[in-house]
Amino acid sequence: MIGPSGTYLQRLGARMDAVGTSLCLGVDPDPASLPAGFPPNVEGVERFAVLLIEAATPHVAAVKANLAFFEAFGSPGIAALERVRARVPPDIPFIADAKRADIGSTSTRQSVALFDTLEADAVTVNPYLGLDALEPLLARPDRFVYVLCRTSNAGAAELQDLLVTTGDGGAGLPLYVQVAHFAAGWARRHPHLGLVCGATGQAEMALVRAAAPELPFLVPGLGAQGGDVSAVMQHGPALAGAAAKLRGGAVVVNVSRAIAGAAIGSSEPSTAVAAAAQQWSTVLGC
Amino acid sequence: MIGPSGTYLQRLGARMDAVGTSLCLGVDPDPASLPAGFPPNVEGVERFAVLLIEAATPHVAAVKANLAFFEAFGSPGIAALERVRARVPPDIPFIADAKRADIGSTSTRQSVALFDTLEADAVTVNPYLGLDALEPLLARPDRFVYVLCRTSNAGAAELQDLLVTTGDGGAGLPLYVQVAHFAAGWARRHPHLGLVCGATGQAEMALVRAAAPELPFLVPGLGAQGGDVSAVMQHGPALAGAAAKLRGGAVVVNVSRAIAGAAIGSSEPSTAVAAAAQQWSTVLGC
Repeated sequence: MIGPSGTYLQRLGARMDAVGTSLCLGVDPDPASLPAGFPPNVEGVERFAVLLIEAATPHVAAVKANLAFFEAFGSPGIAALERVRARVPPDIPFIADAKRADIGSTSTRQSVALFDTLEADAVTVNPYLGLDALEPLLARPDRFVYVLCRTSNAGAAELQDLLVTTGDGGAGLPLYVQVAHFAAGWARRHPHLGLVCGATGQAEMALVRAAAPELPFLVPGLGAQGGDVSAVMQHGPALAGAAAKLRGGAVVVNVSRAIAGAAIGSSEPSTAVAAAAQQWSTVLGC
Repeated sequence: MIGPSGTYLQRLGARMDAVGTSLCLGVDPDPASLPAGFPPNVEGVERFAVLLIEAATPHVAAVKANLAFFEAFGSPGIAALERVRARVPPDIPFIADAKRADIGSTSTRQSVALFDTLEADAVTVNPYLGLDALEPLLARPDRFVYVLCRTSNAGAAELQDLLVTTGDGGAGLPLYVQVAHFAAGWARRHPHLGLVCGATGQAEMALVRAAAPELPFLVPGLGAQGGDVSAVMQHGPALAGAAAKLRGGAVVVNVSRAIAGAAIGSSEPSTAVAAAAQQWSTVLGC
């Protein structure tokens, strides 16, 4: 296959210039939450995902699909995901929210699965296994890796807020801040790397931004999860380096249910989704 | 569908009684490492996975498939995985090495994907997001969840050995030991939970066992990764609780490349795989 041209950040920056927003459309179609007329099976999920993409993408900087919503249907679900992915216009970066990471030989196959087979522009990964588990994914100059740093779930603090001591007797840092420091270090050798930092914690996002001023953020947790827009627009943009030169500091802000939910109970779901996407596009204008 | 009967540990215990070993066959078919006669594509991968299962399963307590090796081929790869999974005899527990975890609504769909659609008896998960990201997977009384604790990759120490404190001024524990403590606490409410603890660190496994004496272990890293058999047999078995009453303390020890690799260069790959599996079955006899 012929891969995309330029770097992910170049493609993202061009799209953000064209559309003037940090909004990322989250495609997480739950069969239990489809509008009337969409059956709660793989066909309904695919049709609704396509509706979301067609109605919302004129207003978005990027599209992020959470793979589990397709994996739940097995091989027919992945086939549906492959068709859904092909509906994303080529000038809009596609992020595979996969939260992968594994030992080297497996990570290499994850890279093939996500970057080659699914043709994702960017992926999300989990840092628990360390840098070597991410290196095969980081080795692609035309793709991008967002490392989970502070997640948006209610229980994120349980591990991520543990205080880490570096053995020199200094005060402890929360683990997620240490991950941000690690990632900033990793990015010196692997520049196609950013962080996932949830919108649900304003103070936490400020600390992550201070620890990693150059790293592009992918921010989940706005909308249904209740994150704070002003904090995202304050701490989300990169402060230094190549990402800071891009519109909006290259921050990508995901909204899923608050856009998809507009279709519920609407007699014109495409129109309702487009209106919700346009509204969020303005809220996240940059 | 009708799920399996009893608990995972009951099924695992019955199989370990029948076969007298802790050996778990790892099915990680890399198209770059197939024997002669197997094309380096999804067909070759499927055929070799079936060969492994047919030749090795008479000698194993469980089968573990790493999903990335099938995901790399997209929907045809998942279809192959579904057929491969169906070849595992019903009395042998099937572990989906997926290393998942996500916020609640996504984790629920991961549970459907792995336990219902793929019919895995057990899965591996990543602890970085905390307990709430695992709860939908832990809610299944007939299935099981192995939480990554100390992994077997060379870079595992980078995050997992960080010293963490809980803020009470006590001495720091390595993060992976803290995860073992957390998991032991989680298991009081969610009993169908164990730990992934790599064979590549003898001292680390001893610390994890001390922190979580009751939790069943899944141990990767023997064979090609160079882990130490005697340490696994010393610290792997559970020391207390229900798992300790099972043969071998319910420890499941994965061997992938050291069994699959026996097929390379052999004129009778099935025979060579069976012999390697029998040998590892004896080494890991219990």
